[in-house]
Amino acid sequence: MEANVRKIIESGAELTDRALERLLPPAEQVPASIHRAMRHSVFAGGKRLRPILCMQAAATITANGSLPEGVEDLGSAIELLHTYSLIHDDLPALDNDDLRRGKPTCHVVYGEAIAILAGDALQTLAYEILASVKCPPAAAIEIVRRIAQATGTVEGMIGGQVLDLEGEHHKPSAEMVHAIHRAKTGALIGVSLVTGGIFAGGSVEDVQRLQEFGRKAGLAFQIADDVLDVTQDSEQLGKTAGKDVASEKMTWPAVYGIEKSRQDATDLIVAAFDELAQYGDRANGLKAVAKYLVERTH
Amino acid sequence: MEANVRKIIESGAELTDRALERLLPPAEQVPASIHRAMRHSVFAGGKRLRPILCMQAAATITANGSLPEGVEDLGSAIELLHTYSLIHDDLPALDNDDLRRGKPTCHVVYGEAIAILAGDALQTLAYEILASVKCPPAAAIEIVRRIAQATGTVEGMIGGQVLDLEGEHHKPSAEMVHAIHRAKTGALIGVSLVTGGIFAGGSVEDVQRLQEFGRKAGLAFQIADDVLDVTQDSEQLGKTAGKDVASEKMTWPAVYGIEKSRQDATDLIVAAFDELAQYGDRANGLKAVAKYLVERTH
Repeated sequence: MEANVRKIIESGAELTDRALERLLPPAEQVPASIHRAMRHSVFAGGKRLRPILCMQAAATITANGSLPEGVEDLGSAIELLHTYSLIHDDLPALDNDDLRRGKPTCHVVYGEAIAILAGDALQTLAYEILASVKCPPAAAIEIVRRIAQATGTVEGMIGGQVLDLEGEHHKPSAEMVHAIHRAKTGALIGVSLVTGGIFAGGSVEDVQRLQEFGRKAGLAFQIADDVLDVTQDSEQLGKTAGKDVASEKMTWPAVYGIEKSRQDATDLIVAAFDELAQYGDRANGLKAVAKYLVERTH
Repeated sequence: MEANVRKIIESGAELTDRALERLLPPAEQVPASIHRAMRHSVFAGGKRLRPILCMQAAATITANGSLPEGVEDLGSAIELLHTYSLIHDDLPALDNDDLRRGKPTCHVVYGEAIAILAGDALQTLAYEILASVKCPPAAAIEIVRRIAQATGTVEGMIGGQVLDLEGEHHKPSAEMVHAIHRAKTGALIGVSLVTGGIFAGGSVEDVQRLQEFGRKAGLAFQIADDVLDVTQDSEQLGKTAGKDVASEKMTWPAVYGIEKSRQDATDLIVAAFDELAQYGDRANGLKAVAKYLVERTH
Protein backbone atom coordinates (compact mmCIF):
# COMPACT_ATOMS: atom_id res chain seq x y z
CA MET A 1 0.00 0.00 0.00
CA GLU A 2 1.30 3.46 -0.87
CA ALA A 3 2.14 5.67 2.11
CA ASN A 4 -0.47 8.21 1.01
CA VAL A 5 -3.44 5.88 0.87
CA ARG A 6 -2.29 4.08 4.01
CA LYS A 7 -2.37 7.39 5.87
CA ILE A 8 -5.86 8.24 4.58
CA ILE A 9 -7.22 4.83 5.52
CA GLU A 10 -5.56 4.63 8.92
CA SER A 11 -6.48 8.15 10.00
CA GLY A 12 -10.03 7.71 8.65
CA ALA A 13 -10.49 4.46 10.57
CA GLU A 14 -9.09 6.06 13.72
CA LEU A 15 -11.38 9.08 13.41
CA THR A 16 -14.35 6.74 12.92
CA ASP A 17 -13.40 4.53 15.87
CA ARG A 18 -13.11 7.53 18.17
CA ALA A 19 -16.53 8.78 17.03
CA LEU A 20 -18.09 5.32 17.48
CA GLU A 21 -16.60 5.08 20.98
CA ARG A 22 -18.26 8.40 21.84
CA LEU A 23 -21.59 7.69 20.11
CA LEU A 24 -22.28 4.14 21.38
CA PRO A 25 -23.71 3.78 24.90
CA PRO A 26 -21.02 2.61 27.38
CA ALA A 27 -20.74 -1.18 27.81
CA GLU A 28 -21.88 -0.93 31.42
CA GLN A 29 -24.97 1.21 30.63
CA VAL A 30 -28.20 -0.63 31.65
CA PRO A 31 -29.35 -2.88 30.03
CA ALA A 32 -25.70 -3.87 29.71
CA SER A 33 -26.12 -7.10 27.73
CA ILE A 34 -27.29 -5.29 24.60
CA HIS A 35 -24.69 -2.53 24.83
CA ARG A 36 -21.94 -5.12 25.17
CA ALA A 37 -23.37 -6.99 22.17
CA MET A 38 -23.54 -3.81 20.06
CA ARG A 39 -19.94 -2.94 20.94
CA HIS A 40 -18.78 -6.51 20.32
CA SER A 41 -19.86 -6.32 16.69
CA VAL A 42 -19.02 -2.66 16.06
CA PHE A 43 -15.47 -3.12 17.39
CA ALA A 44 -14.83 -6.52 15.78
CA GLY A 45 -12.18 -5.30 13.36
CA GLY A 46 -14.26 -3.63 10.66
CA LYS A 47 -12.14 -1.68 8.19
CA ARG A 48 -14.46 1.39 8.27
CA LEU A 49 -14.45 1.56 4.47
CA ARG A 50 -17.87 3.18 4.23
CA PRO A 51 -17.03 5.99 6.69
CA ILE A 52 -13.67 6.52 4.96
CA LEU A 53 -15.39 6.76 1.56
CA CYS A 54 -18.02 9.09 3.03
CA MET A 55 -15.36 11.39 4.49
CA GLN A 56 -13.28 11.43 1.31
CA ALA A 57 -16.39 12.19 -0.76
CA ALA A 58 -17.09 15.11 1.57
CA ALA A 59 -13.48 16.32 1.20
CA THR A 60 -13.86 16.19 -2.61
CA ILE A 61 -16.71 18.70 -2.38
CA THR A 62 -15.28 21.18 0.15
CA ALA A 63 -13.47 24.22 -1.27
CA ASN A 64 -10.03 23.27 0.07
CA GLY A 65 -10.33 19.47 -0.10
CA SER A 66 -10.25 19.00 3.70
CA LEU A 67 -12.71 17.08 5.89
CA PRO A 68 -15.72 19.14 7.00
CA GLU A 69 -16.14 19.26 10.79
CA GLY A 70 -18.34 16.50 12.19
CA VAL A 71 -18.45 14.36 9.04
CA GLU A 72 -17.16 11.42 11.13
CA ASP A 73 -20.54 11.22 12.90
CA LEU A 74 -22.26 10.71 9.54
CA GLY A 75 -19.69 8.07 8.63
CA SER A 76 -20.16 6.35 11.98
CA ALA A 77 -23.93 6.18 11.53
CA ILE A 78 -23.39 4.47 8.18
CA GLU A 79 -20.94 2.02 9.80
CA LEU A 80 -23.60 1.15 12.39
CA LEU A 81 -26.07 0.36 9.59
CA HIS A 82 -23.46 -1.87 7.92
CA THR A 83 -22.79 -3.61 11.24
CA TYR A 84 -26.50 -4.18 11.96
CA SER A 85 -26.88 -5.86 8.56
CA LEU A 86 -23.90 -8.14 9.29
CA ILE A 87 -25.28 -9.19 12.70
CA HIS A 88 -28.65 -10.13 11.19
CA ASP A 89 -27.05 -11.74 8.11
CA ASP A 90 -24.95 -13.99 10.38
CA LEU A 91 -27.96 -15.30 12.36
CA PRO A 92 -28.78 -19.04 12.21
CA ALA A 93 -32.01 -18.30 10.30
CA LEU A 94 -30.03 -16.45 7.61
CA ASP A 95 -26.40 -17.28 6.71
CA ASN A 96 -25.67 -19.11 9.99
CA ASP A 97 -22.09 -17.84 10.31
CA ASP A 98 -20.21 -18.45 13.56
CA LEU A 99 -17.18 -16.43 12.57
CA ARG A 100 -16.67 -12.98 11.05
CA ARG A 101 -13.33 -11.20 10.70
CA GLY A 102 -11.83 -14.04 12.74
CA LYS A 103 -14.09 -13.42 15.73
CA PRO A 104 -17.20 -15.22 16.98
CA THR A 105 -20.36 -13.56 15.66
CA CYS A 106 -22.80 -11.67 17.90
CA HIS A 107 -25.35 -14.48 18.38
CA VAL A 108 -22.59 -16.97 19.24
CA VAL A 109 -21.45 -14.79 22.15
CA TYR A 110 -24.71 -13.17 23.28
CA GLY A 111 -27.44 -15.52 22.05
CA GLU A 112 -29.93 -15.06 19.23
CA ALA A 113 -32.42 -12.87 21.11
CA ILE A 114 -29.84 -10.25 22.08
CA ALA A 115 -28.20 -10.44 18.63
CA ILE A 116 -31.53 -9.68 16.93
CA LEU A 117 -32.17 -6.75 19.28
CA ALA A 118 -28.56 -5.51 19.01
CA GLY A 119 -28.97 -5.34 15.22
CA ASP A 120 -32.26 -3.49 15.65
CA ALA A 121 -30.65 -1.11 18.11
CA LEU A 122 -27.71 -0.28 15.85
CA GLN A 123 -30.16 0.71 13.13
CA THR A 124 -32.08 2.87 15.60
CA LEU A 125 -28.90 4.50 16.94
CA ALA A 126 -27.78 5.28 13.39
CA TYR A 127 -30.88 7.42 12.86
CA GLU A 128 -30.50 9.09 16.25
CA ILE A 129 -26.98 10.08 15.21
CA LEU A 130 -28.12 11.23 11.75
CA ALA A 131 -30.70 13.47 13.41
CA SER A 132 -27.87 15.24 15.26
CA VAL A 133 -25.21 15.65 12.54
CA LYS A 134 -23.70 19.12 12.20
CA CYS A 135 -25.32 20.37 8.99
CA PRO A 136 -28.45 22.41 8.15
CA PRO A 137 -31.73 20.58 8.96
CA ALA A 138 -32.76 20.44 5.27
CA ALA A 139 -29.50 18.61 4.43
CA ALA A 140 -29.81 16.34 7.47
CA ILE A 141 -33.34 15.27 6.56
CA GLU A 142 -32.24 14.63 2.96
CA ILE A 143 -29.41 12.45 4.33
CA VAL A 144 -31.92 10.46 6.45
CA ARG A 145 -34.17 9.98 3.41
CA ARG A 146 -31.34 8.83 1.12
CA ILE A 147 -29.91 6.44 3.71
CA ALA A 148 -33.29 4.90 4.49
CA GLN A 149 -33.89 4.32 0.77
CA ALA A 150 -30.42 2.82 0.26
CA THR A 151 -30.92 0.35 3.11
CA GLY A 152 -34.54 -0.54 2.29
CA THR A 153 -36.31 -3.27 0.34
CA VAL A 154 -36.72 -1.57 -3.04
CA GLU A 155 -33.26 -1.64 -4.65
CA GLY A 156 -31.64 -1.23 -1.22
CA MET A 157 -29.63 -3.33 1.21
CA ILE A 158 -32.46 -5.39 2.69
CA GLY A 159 -33.86 -6.04 -0.78
CA GLY A 160 -30.43 -7.37 -1.77
CA GLN A 161 -30.35 -9.67 1.26
CA VAL A 162 -33.75 -11.07 0.29
CA LEU A 163 -32.70 -11.63 -3.35
CA ASP A 164 -29.53 -13.30 -2.03
CA LEU A 165 -31.54 -15.63 0.26
CA GLU A 166 -33.96 -16.50 -2.54
CA GLY A 167 -31.08 -17.03 -4.96
CA GLU A 168 -29.30 -19.68 -2.87
CA HIS A 169 -29.53 -23.15 -4.36
CA HIS A 170 -30.47 -21.72 -7.76
CA LYS A 171 -28.07 -21.61 -10.69
CA PRO A 172 -26.46 -18.13 -10.71
CA SER A 173 -27.47 -15.86 -13.61
CA ALA A 174 -25.59 -12.72 -14.66
CA GLU A 175 -28.68 -10.55 -14.35
CA MET A 176 -29.41 -11.75 -10.82
CA VAL A 177 -25.78 -11.31 -9.72
CA HIS A 178 -25.92 -7.69 -10.91
CA ALA A 179 -29.18 -7.01 -9.09
CA ILE A 180 -27.97 -8.55 -5.82
CA HIS A 181 -24.65 -6.68 -5.86
CA ARG A 182 -26.29 -3.38 -6.70
CA ALA A 183 -28.79 -3.66 -3.86
CA LYS A 184 -26.92 -5.55 -1.14
CA THR A 185 -23.59 -3.70 -1.21
CA GLY A 186 -23.67 -1.04 -3.89
CA ALA A 187 -26.55 0.96 -2.46
CA LEU A 188 -24.97 1.55 0.98
CA ILE A 189 -21.56 2.36 -0.50
CA GLY A 190 -23.20 4.70 -2.99
CA VAL A 191 -25.14 6.52 -0.30
CA SER A 192 -21.97 6.85 1.83
CA LEU A 193 -20.50 8.91 -0.99
CA VAL A 194 -23.67 10.81 -1.80
CA THR A 195 -24.43 11.79 1.79
CA GLY A 196 -20.79 12.81 2.30
CA GLY A 197 -21.36 15.21 -0.61
CA ILE A 198 -24.68 16.48 0.78
CA PHE A 199 -23.11 16.98 4.23
CA ALA A 200 -20.33 19.05 2.65
CA GLY A 201 -22.90 21.31 0.96
CA GLY A 202 -22.60 19.83 -2.54
CA SER A 203 -24.85 20.95 -5.42
CA VAL A 204 -27.35 18.67 -7.16
CA GLU A 205 -24.70 18.09 -9.86
CA ASP A 206 -22.01 17.22 -7.28
CA VAL A 207 -24.36 14.68 -5.71
CA GLN A 208 -25.19 13.15 -9.10
CA ARG A 209 -21.49 12.77 -9.93
CA LEU A 210 -20.78 11.10 -6.59
CA GLN A 211 -23.76 8.81 -7.15
CA GLU A 212 -22.45 7.71 -10.53
CA PHE A 213 -18.93 7.28 -9.14
CA GLY A 214 -20.43 5.18 -6.34
CA ARG A 215 -22.49 3.03 -8.69
CA LYS A 216 -19.38 2.01 -10.61
CA ALA A 217 -16.93 1.82 -7.69
CA GLY A 218 -19.40 -0.03 -5.45
CA LEU A 219 -19.82 -2.81 -7.97
CA ALA A 220 -16.03 -3.01 -8.33
CA PHE A 221 -15.62 -3.42 -4.53
CA GLN A 222 -18.20 -6.21 -4.37
CA ILE A 223 -16.49 -8.07 -7.22
CA ALA A 224 -13.17 -7.63 -5.41
CA ASP A 225 -14.71 -9.08 -2.22
CA ASP A 226 -16.13 -12.06 -4.09
CA VAL A 227 -12.74 -12.73 -5.71
CA LEU A 228 -11.03 -12.53 -2.30
CA ASP A 229 -13.55 -15.02 -0.95
CA VAL A 230 -12.59 -17.73 -3.47
CA THR A 231 -8.82 -17.01 -3.65
CA GLN A 232 -7.85 -16.61 0.00
CA ASP A 233 -8.02 -19.15 2.80
CA SER A 234 -10.07 -18.76 5.97
CA GLU A 235 -7.18 -17.64 8.15
CA GLN A 236 -6.25 -14.69 5.94
CA LEU A 237 -9.87 -13.73 5.42
CA GLY A 238 -11.17 -14.19 8.97
CA LYS A 239 -14.32 -15.90 7.76
CA THR A 240 -15.19 -19.28 6.35
CA ALA A 241 -13.61 -19.10 2.86
CA GLY A 242 -15.44 -20.52 -0.11
CA LYS A 243 -18.70 -20.58 1.88
CA ASP A 244 -20.51 -18.53 -0.76
CA VAL A 245 -19.40 -20.97 -3.41
CA ALA A 246 -20.30 -24.00 -1.31
CA SER A 247 -23.86 -22.73 -0.84
CA GLU A 248 -24.05 -21.72 -4.51
CA LYS A 249 -24.46 -18.02 -3.78
CA MET A 250 -24.59 -15.88 -6.88
CA THR A 251 -21.14 -14.31 -6.85
CA TRP A 252 -19.43 -12.54 -9.73
CA PRO A 253 -16.61 -15.14 -10.09
CA ALA A 254 -19.19 -17.96 -10.07
CA VAL A 255 -20.65 -16.49 -13.26
CA TYR A 256 -17.64 -14.90 -14.99
CA GLY A 257 -14.59 -16.67 -13.53
CA ILE A 258 -11.80 -15.10 -11.48
CA GLU A 259 -9.70 -13.52 -14.26
CA LYS A 260 -12.57 -11.71 -15.94
CA SER A 261 -13.89 -10.63 -12.53
CA ARG A 262 -10.54 -8.97 -11.71
CA GLN A 263 -10.50 -7.19 -15.08
CA ASP A 264 -14.11 -6.02 -14.68
CA ALA A 265 -13.28 -4.54 -11.27
CA THR A 266 -10.31 -2.61 -12.70
CA ASP A 267 -12.31 -1.33 -15.69
CA LEU A 268 -15.14 -0.16 -13.42
CA ILE A 269 -12.74 1.86 -11.25
CA VAL A 270 -11.27 3.62 -14.30
CA ALA A 271 -14.78 4.53 -15.45
CA ALA A 272 -15.63 5.71 -11.93
CA PHE A 273 -12.58 8.04 -11.87
CA ASP A 274 -13.82 9.80 -15.03
CA GLU A 275 -16.85 11.01 -13.04
CA LEU A 276 -14.55 12.98 -10.71
CA ALA A 277 -12.36 14.64 -13.38
CA GLN A 278 -13.49 18.18 -12.67
CA TYR A 279 -12.56 18.08 -8.98
CA GLY A 280 -8.85 17.76 -9.78
CA ASP A 281 -6.61 17.15 -6.78
CA ARG A 282 -9.51 17.45 -4.33
CA ALA A 283 -10.66 13.98 -5.48
CA ASN A 284 -7.21 12.41 -4.97
CA GLY A 285 -8.03 10.98 -1.54
CA LEU A 286 -11.28 9.41 -2.74
CA LYS A 287 -9.63 8.00 -5.86
CA ALA A 288 -6.67 6.59 -3.92
CA VAL A 289 -8.98 4.75 -1.50
CA ALA A 290 -11.11 3.36 -4.32
CA LYS A 291 -8.05 2.15 -6.24
CA TYR A 292 -6.65 0.48 -3.14
CA LEU A 293 -9.91 -1.34 -2.45
CA VAL A 294 -9.97 -2.92 -5.88
CA GLU A 295 -6.26 -3.75 -6.04
CA ARG A 296 -6.48 -5.84 -2.87
CA THR A 297 -7.57 -8.66 -5.16
CA HIS A 298 -4.42 -8.79 -7.30
CA MET B 1 -68.15 3.01 23.62
CA GLU B 2 -69.57 6.51 23.26
CA ALA B 3 -70.48 7.57 19.72
CA ASN B 4 -67.94 10.42 19.88
CA VAL B 5 -64.89 8.36 20.76
CA ARG B 6 -65.99 5.56 18.44
CA LYS B 7 -66.00 8.04 15.56
CA ILE B 8 -62.55 9.40 16.46
CA ILE B 9 -61.05 5.92 16.72
CA GLU B 10 -62.72 4.53 13.60
CA SER B 11 -61.88 7.50 11.40
CA GLY B 12 -58.33 7.66 12.79
CA ALA B 13 -57.76 3.97 12.08
CA GLU B 14 -59.21 4.38 8.59
CA LEU B 15 -57.01 7.39 7.84
CA THR B 16 -53.96 5.45 9.08
CA ASP B 17 -54.85 2.34 7.06
CA ARG B 18 -55.21 4.39 3.88
CA ALA B 19 -51.83 6.04 4.51
CA LEU B 20 -50.15 2.69 5.23
CA GLU B 21 -51.62 1.24 2.05
CA ARG B 22 -50.09 4.12 0.10
CA LEU B 23 -46.73 4.14 1.94
CA LEU B 24 -45.92 0.40 1.93
CA PRO B 25 -44.46 -1.08 -1.28
CA PRO B 26 -47.10 -3.09 -3.20
CA ALA B 27 -47.26 -6.82 -2.32
CA GLU B 28 -46.12 -7.76 -5.82
CA GLN B 29 -43.09 -5.38 -5.81
CA VAL B 30 -39.81 -7.35 -6.18
CA PRO B 31 -38.58 -8.89 -3.88
CA ALA B 32 -42.21 -9.85 -3.24
CA SER B 33 -41.71 -12.19 -0.28
CA ILE B 34 -40.61 -9.41 2.05
CA HIS B 35 -43.27 -6.96 0.91
CA ARG B 36 -45.95 -9.60 1.49
CA ALA B 37 -44.47 -10.31 4.93
CA MET B 38 -44.42 -6.60 5.84
CA ARG B 39 -48.04 -6.20 4.74
CA HIS B 40 -49.09 -9.39 6.54
CA SER B 41 -48.04 -7.95 9.89
CA VAL B 42 -49.00 -4.31 9.25
CA PHE B 43 -52.52 -5.31 8.17
CA ALA B 44 -53.07 -7.99 10.84
CA GLY B 45 -55.77 -6.11 12.73
CA GLY B 46 -53.76 -3.55 14.70
CA LYS B 47 -55.96 -0.96 16.39
CA ARG B 48 -53.73 1.97 15.26
CA LEU B 49 -53.76 3.41 18.78
CA ARG B 50 -50.39 5.13 18.45
CA PRO B 51 -51.30 6.92 15.18
CA ILE B 52 -54.68 7.89 16.65
CA LEU B 53 -52.99 9.31 19.76
CA CYS B 54 -50.43 11.10 17.58
CA MET B 55 -53.14 12.68 15.44
CA GLN B 56 -55.24 13.73 18.44
CA ALA B 57 -52.16 15.24 20.12
CA ALA B 58 -51.54 17.24 16.94
CA ALA B 59 -55.18 18.37 16.89
CA THR B 60 -54.84 19.54 20.52
CA ILE B 61 -52.06 21.92 19.44
CA THR B 62 -53.55 23.37 16.23
CA ALA B 63 -55.46 26.65 16.54
CA ASN B 64 -58.86 25.19 15.62
CA GLY B 65 -58.45 21.69 17.06
CA SER B 66 -58.49 19.96 13.66
CA LEU B 67 -55.96 17.48 12.23
CA PRO B 68 -53.00 19.15 10.46
CA GLU B 69 -52.58 18.02 6.85
CA GLY B 70 -50.30 15.00 6.45
CA VAL B 71 -50.12 14.03 10.14
CA GLU B 72 -51.33 10.55 9.17
CA ASP B 73 -47.93 9.86 7.56
CA LEU B 74 -46.21 10.56 10.87
CA GLY B 75 -48.70 8.30 12.64
CA SER B 76 -48.16 5.57 10.06
CA ALA B 77 -44.38 5.67 10.51
CA ILE B 78 -44.89 5.18 14.25
CA GLU B 79 -47.26 2.27 13.57
CA LEU B 80 -44.55 0.65 11.40
CA LEU B 81 -42.08 0.92 14.29
CA HIS B 82 -44.61 -0.69 16.62
CA THR B 83 -45.21 -3.48 14.09
CA TYR B 84 -41.48 -4.13 13.58
CA SER B 85 -41.07 -4.57 17.35
CA LEU B 86 -43.97 -7.05 17.45
CA ILE B 87 -42.55 -9.13 14.57
CA HIS B 88 -39.17 -9.42 16.29
CA ASP B 89 -40.73 -9.95 19.74
CA ASP B 90 -42.74 -12.89 18.39
CA LEU B 91 -39.68 -14.69 16.93
CA PRO B 92 -38.75 -18.14 18.32
CA ALA B 93 -35.54 -16.71 19.87
CA LEU B 94 -37.59 -14.11 21.79
CA ASP B 95 -41.21 -14.71 22.93
CA ASN B 96 -41.87 -17.55 20.46
CA ASP B 97 -45.48 -16.58 19.75
CA ASP B 98 -47.34 -18.31 16.92
CA LEU B 99 -50.42 -16.18 17.21
CA ARG B 100 -51.04 -12.43 17.47
CA ARG B 101 -54.43 -10.74 17.24
CA GLY B 102 -55.84 -14.14 16.28
CA LYS B 103 -53.59 -14.49 13.22
CA PRO B 104 -50.41 -16.51 12.62
CA THR B 105 -47.32 -14.41 13.29
CA CYS B 106 -44.92 -13.30 10.54
CA HIS B 107 -42.29 -16.03 11.00
CA VAL B 108 -44.97 -18.75 11.06
CA VAL B 109 -46.16 -17.71 7.60
CA TYR B 110 -42.95 -16.46 5.94
CA GLY B 111 -40.16 -18.19 7.89
CA GLU B 112 -37.69 -16.72 10.37
CA ALA B 113 -35.25 -15.21 7.86
CA ILE B 114 -37.92 -13.14 6.08
CA ALA B 115 -39.56 -12.21 9.40
CA ILE B 116 -36.25 -10.82 10.73
CA LEU B 117 -35.70 -8.84 7.52
CA ALA B 118 -39.35 -7.69 7.38
CA GLY B 119 -38.98 -6.24 10.88
CA ASP B 120 -35.74 -4.55 9.84
CA ALA B 121 -37.41 -3.17 6.72
CA LEU B 122 -40.39 -1.73 8.60
CA GLN B 123 -37.98 0.19 10.82
CA THR B 124 -36.12 1.46 7.74
CA LEU B 125 -39.34 2.43 5.95
CA ALA B 126 -40.51 4.32 9.04
CA TYR B 127 -37.47 6.62 8.80
CA GLU B 128 -37.89 7.02 5.05
CA ILE B 129 -41.45 8.21 5.71
CA LEU B 130 -40.35 10.48 8.58
CA ALA B 131 -37.83 12.11 6.24
CA SER B 132 -40.71 13.07 3.92
CA VAL B 133 -43.39 14.28 6.35
CA LYS B 134 -45.02 17.62 5.52
CA CYS B 135 -43.45 19.93 8.10
CA PRO B 136 -40.39 22.23 8.19
CA PRO B 137 -37.04 20.34 8.05
CA ALA B 138 -36.04 21.47 11.56
CA ALA B 139 -39.24 19.95 12.97
CA ALA B 140 -38.84 16.78 10.87
CA ILE B 141 -35.29 16.19 12.07
CA GLU B 142 -36.39 16.77 15.68
CA ILE B 143 -39.14 14.17 15.13
CA VAL B 144 -36.57 11.67 13.81
CA ARG B 145 -34.32 12.31 16.82
CA ARG B 146 -37.11 11.91 19.37
CA ILE B 147 -38.46 8.75 17.76
CA ALA B 148 -35.03 7.12 17.52
CA GLN B 149 -34.43 7.84 21.23
CA ALA B 150 -37.85 6.51 22.22
CA THR B 151 -37.27 3.24 20.36
CA GLY B 152 -33.62 2.79 21.42
CA THR B 153 -31.79 0.93 24.16
CA VAL B 154 -31.44 3.68 26.78
CA GLU B 155 -34.89 4.05 28.34
CA GLY B 156 -36.52 3.23 24.96
CA MET B 157 -38.47 0.38 23.39
CA ILE B 158 -35.55 -1.98 22.68
CA GLY B 159 -34.15 -1.38 26.16
CA GLY B 160 -37.53 -2.41 27.55
CA GLN B 161 -37.52 -5.59 25.47
CA VAL B 162 -34.09 -6.49 26.85
CA LEU B 163 -35.15 -5.84 30.46
CA ASP B 164 -38.25 -7.94 29.80
CA LEU B 165 -36.16 -10.83 28.41
CA GLU B 166 -33.74 -10.64 31.32
CA GLY B 167 -36.62 -10.43 33.81
CA GLU B 168 -38.27 -13.69 32.75
CA HIS B 169 -37.98 -16.43 35.33
CA HIS B 170 -37.10 -13.90 38.03
CA LYS B 171 -39.53 -12.89 40.75
CA PRO B 172 -41.23 -9.64 39.61
CA SER B 173 -40.32 -6.51 41.60
CA ALA B 174 -42.28 -3.25 41.54
CA GLU B 175 -39.26 -1.23 40.48
CA MET B 176 -38.46 -3.54 37.56
CA VAL B 177 -42.10 -3.59 36.41
CA HIS B 178 -42.08 0.22 36.31
CA ALA B 179 -38.83 0.35 34.33
CA ILE B 180 -39.98 -2.23 31.78
CA HIS B 181 -43.36 -0.56 31.24
CA ARG B 182 -41.84 2.88 30.89
CA ALA B 183 -39.31 1.73 28.29
CA LYS B 184 -41.11 -1.02 26.38
CA THR B 185 -44.49 0.65 25.84
CA GLY B 186 -44.50 4.06 27.47
CA ALA B 187 -41.68 5.55 25.42
CA LEU B 188 -43.26 4.90 22.00
CA ILE B 189 -46.70 6.05 23.15
CA GLY B 190 -45.14 9.14 24.69
CA VAL B 191 -43.25 10.01 21.52
CA SER B 192 -46.41 9.51 19.44
CA LEU B 193 -47.97 12.35 21.40
CA VAL B 194 -44.84 14.52 21.51
CA THR B 195 -44.11 14.25 17.80
CA GLY B 196 -47.77 14.93 16.98
CA GLY B 197 -47.29 18.18 18.91
CA ILE B 198 -44.02 19.01 17.16
CA PHE B 199 -45.58 18.26 13.76
CA ALA B 200 -48.43 20.66 14.57
CA GLY B 201 -45.94 23.43 15.36
CA GLY B 202 -46.21 23.22 19.17
CA SER B 203 -44.00 25.31 21.48
CA VAL B 204 -41.44 23.83 23.87
CA GLU B 205 -44.09 24.12 26.63
CA ASP B 206 -46.72 22.34 24.51
CA VAL B 207 -44.31 19.50 23.88
CA GLN B 208 -43.44 19.22 27.58
CA ARG B 209 -47.14 19.03 28.51
CA LEU B 210 -47.78 16.31 25.94
CA GLN B 211 -44.73 14.44 27.23
CA GLU B 212 -46.02 14.51 30.80
CA PHE B 213 -49.52 13.52 29.64
CA GLY B 214 -47.94 10.64 27.71
CA ARG B 215 -45.84 9.49 30.64
CA LYS B 216 -48.91 9.07 32.81
CA ALA B 217 -51.33 7.84 30.14
CA GLY B 218 -48.78 5.42 28.63
CA LEU B 219 -48.30 3.66 31.94
CA ALA B 220 -52.09 3.49 32.37
CA PHE B 221 -52.46 1.80 28.95
CA GLN B 222 -49.81 -0.81 29.74
CA ILE B 223 -51.47 -1.64 33.05
CA ALA B 224 -54.80 -1.93 31.20
CA ASP B 225 -53.20 -4.33 28.69
CA ASP B 226 -51.70 -6.46 31.44
CA VAL B 227 -55.07 -6.64 33.20
CA LEU B 228 -56.76 -7.64 29.94
CA ASP B 229 -54.17 -10.37 29.50
CA VAL B 230 -55.06 -12.10 32.77
CA THR B 231 -58.84 -11.49 32.73
CA GLN B 232 -59.80 -12.36 29.14
CA ASP B 233 -59.58 -15.71 27.39
CA SER B 234 -57.51 -16.35 24.27
CA GLU B 235 -60.42 -16.13 21.84
CA GLN B 236 -61.46 -12.64 22.95
CA LEU B 237 -57.88 -11.44 23.06
CA GLY B 238 -56.53 -13.04 19.88
CA LYS B 239 -53.33 -14.12 21.58
CA THR B 240 -52.39 -16.80 24.07
CA ALA B 241 -53.98 -15.50 27.29
CA GLY B 242 -52.10 -15.79 30.57
CA LYS B 243 -48.86 -16.43 28.66
CA ASP B 244 -47.10 -13.54 30.41
CA VAL B 245 -48.15 -14.96 33.77
CA ALA B 246 -47.17 -18.50 32.81
CA SER B 247 -43.64 -17.39 31.89
CA GLU B 248 -43.48 -15.19 35.02
CA LYS B 249 -43.20 -11.92 33.07
CA MET B 250 -43.16 -8.88 35.28
CA THR B 251 -46.65 -7.52 34.76
CA TRP B 252 -48.43 -4.93 36.90
CA PRO B 253 -51.17 -7.33 38.13
CA ALA B 254 -48.50 -9.90 39.05
CA VAL B 255 -47.11 -7.39 41.55
CA TYR B 256 -50.19 -5.42 42.66
CA GLY B 257 -53.15 -7.68 41.90
CA ILE B 258 -56.00 -6.97 39.45
CA GLU B 259 -58.16 -4.61 41.52
CA LYS B 260 -55.35 -2.24 42.49
CA SER B 261 -54.04 -2.33 38.92
CA ARG B 262 -57.42 -1.16 37.60
CA GLN B 263 -57.55 1.65 40.16
CA ASP B 264 -53.97 2.72 39.38
CA ALA B 265 -54.81 2.95 35.67
CA THR B 266 -57.85 5.16 36.37
CA ASP B 267 -55.91 7.43 38.75
CA LEU B 268 -53.11 7.86 36.23
CA ILE B 269 -55.54 8.94 33.51
CA VAL B 270 -57.08 11.59 35.78
CA ALA B 271 -53.59 12.95 36.53
CA ALA B 272 -52.78 12.90 32.81
CA PHE B 273 -55.90 14.97 31.99
CA ASP B 274 -54.74 17.71 34.36
CA GLU B 275 -51.74 18.28 32.07
CA LEU B 276 -54.07 19.29 29.22
CA ALA B 277 -56.34 21.66 31.18
CA GLN B 278 -55.30 24.80 29.31
CA TYR B 279 -56.22 23.43 25.87
CA GLY B 280 -59.94 23.29 26.77
CA ASP B 281 -62.13 21.65 24.16
CA ARG B 282 -59.21 21.18 21.73
CA ALA B 283 -57.98 18.34 23.98
CA ASN B 284 -61.37 16.58 24.05
CA GLY B 285 -60.49 14.10 21.31
CA LEU B 286 -57.21 13.13 22.95
CA LYS B 287 -58.82 12.81 26.37
CA ALA B 288 -61.72 10.74 25.03
CA VAL B 289 -59.36 8.26 23.37
CA ALA B 290 -57.18 7.97 26.48
CA LYS B 291 -60.23 7.39 28.72
CA TYR B 292 -61.56 4.74 26.37
CA LEU B 293 -58.23 2.88 26.31
CA VAL B 294 -58.16 2.55 30.08
CA GLU B 295 -61.84 1.72 30.54
CA ARG B 296 -61.53 -1.32 28.26
CA THR B 297 -60.34 -3.14 31.37
CA HIS B 298 -63.49 -2.67 33.44
